[in-house]
Amino acid sequence: MLSNIRIVLVQTYHPGNIGATARAMKTMGLSDLVLVNPRCFPDPEASRLAAGAEDLIDQARVVGSLAEAVNDCVQVVGASARLRSLPLPHFDEPTDMARDIVDQGADDPVALVFGRERFGLTNDEIRCCSHQVSIPANPDYGILNLSQAVQVLAHEVFTAWRRRPDSDFRLARPSQDRQPPREQLGHFHDHLTRVMQRSGFITQPHARTEAQLQALFARARPSRKELSLLRGLLASLEQHLPDDRLPDEQLTDDRLSDE
Amino acid sequence: MLSNIRIVLVQTYHPGNIGATARAMKTMGLSDLVLVNPRCFPDPEASRLAAGAEDLIDQARVVGSLAEAVNDCVQVVGASARLRSLPLPHFDEPTDMARDIVDQGADDPVALVFGRERFGLTNDEIRCCSHQVSIPANPDYGILNLSQAVQVLAHEVFTAWRRRPDSDFRLARPSQDRQPPREQLGHFHDHLTRVMQRSGFITQPHARTEAQLQALFARARPSRKELSLLRGLLASLEQHLPDDRLPDEQLTDDRLSDE
Repeated sequence: MLSNIRIVLVQTYHPGNIGATARAMKTMGLSDLVLVNPRCFPDPEASRLAAGAEDLIDQARVVGSLAEAVNDCVQVVGASARLRSLPLPHFDEPTDMARDIVDQGADDPVALVFGRERFGLTNDEIRCCSHQVSIPANPDYGILNLSQAVQVLAHEVFTAWRRRPDSDFRLARPSQDRQPPREQLGHFHDHLTRVMQRSGFITQPHARTEAQLQALFARARPSRKELSLLRGLLASLEQHLPDDRLPDEQLTDDRLSDE
Repeated sequence: MLSNIRIVLVQTYHPGNIGATARAMKTMGLSDLVLVNPRCFPDPEASRLAAGAEDLIDQARVVGSLAEAVNDCVQVVGASARLRSLPLPHFDEPTDMARDIVDQGADDPVALVFGRERFGLTNDEIRCCSHQVSIPANPDYGILNLSQAVQVLAHEVFTAWRRRPDSDFRLARPSQDRQPPREQLGHFHDHLTRVMQRSGFITQPHARTEAQLQALFARARPSRKELSLLRGLLASLEQHLPDDRLPDEQLTDDRLSDE
């Protein structure tokens, strides 16, 4: 699906931008790069900045016109920093553009077109497009570097693709430590309350303080391992505290039996 | 609000990346840049790649440790390509991170921290952070160039900020031409149907064809100006068609009275 999404650069001036574009593309699962009349290509700067994405550089197609680059595409989105007077369909939000282009790209080739560093795309080139998109930016300084604009829109495209139910992307998640059952959490909080009382921090059961700490640890979500660590700490502290039990307080043997 | 969001670069190797970072920041409304032990700074490469964001370079603070860079911050998000074994709070989605950091940044300084080009952040530096974030990427090639990673996360931050009801950002929208009332659209479709019949394209009222064209033009949403253009075209065509009216067909004077 991402293989149907083509990146087209028109008359790029700095070969370094071509290399940086290739790298940006590859990090976001894109591989189809087409260059329309690049000023200097191939070029060592392009290869240097591609940094591991040289395969995209090597496979890049060079053509003489934008029409040639996109004739087989069913949707062509021109990235443009400035608004044109012609009311072409326009995506204000890169997120919406990305969702649409990924949908269209499920079955047919589609393209995202970027213009020259200084001058963007000409009006004629915009007419080769079915849509325009711009990246909302600082009104006082809103022109991104060419390869940065590619990175941002490629990231949006990758995000839209990931969010489809039919994509097979799986986020690498850190392995979860096991969670303790409620009973063990309860024992921990009893233990903590006992230590607070014996230390003189609270002189009698104090519901508000206990509730606050329960909320804090609920947000922290201690794993079994971490709870054991905390219980061990409380036990060490307890050894030094006066034996200051409340009347009628029952001792319970609630030390953790596992871990 | 965006002024509370600090970008911290740790031990950046290439001064060009510092310049490109400044540019990326400025396009997204950020201005607070802090450098921890940069290898070469100040440097002409940094200024060259800043390209209009040199003010950020000039105002950038240089410090000797990450702790010094973020001590006043209430939230410190470390951007990390790889997962650590310590289960620090982790944002899988840059969008979620951005929303959170913009919320926190409403009242207090917050920071987004980026590590070295090759080695990222050390475990000790991750411990200076309250959260981690990674940018979901191609599992086979997932490390973005440093300044590209800044651009992507800054774009997400700017997007989160724009979406807040209290932000004053207004998208530049192309001026909308006036839309025609339903009656005029109806006249247009009658006119079109007449032309189709008189040309022999359809030999009798054909509901399906007419409905299809109504749907097409509904999606196109012709403005008054465009409708007038289409009516003018139909009128020119009509002059050349045989006078082939259906029996009992009523003539209506439905030419547009305005525009």
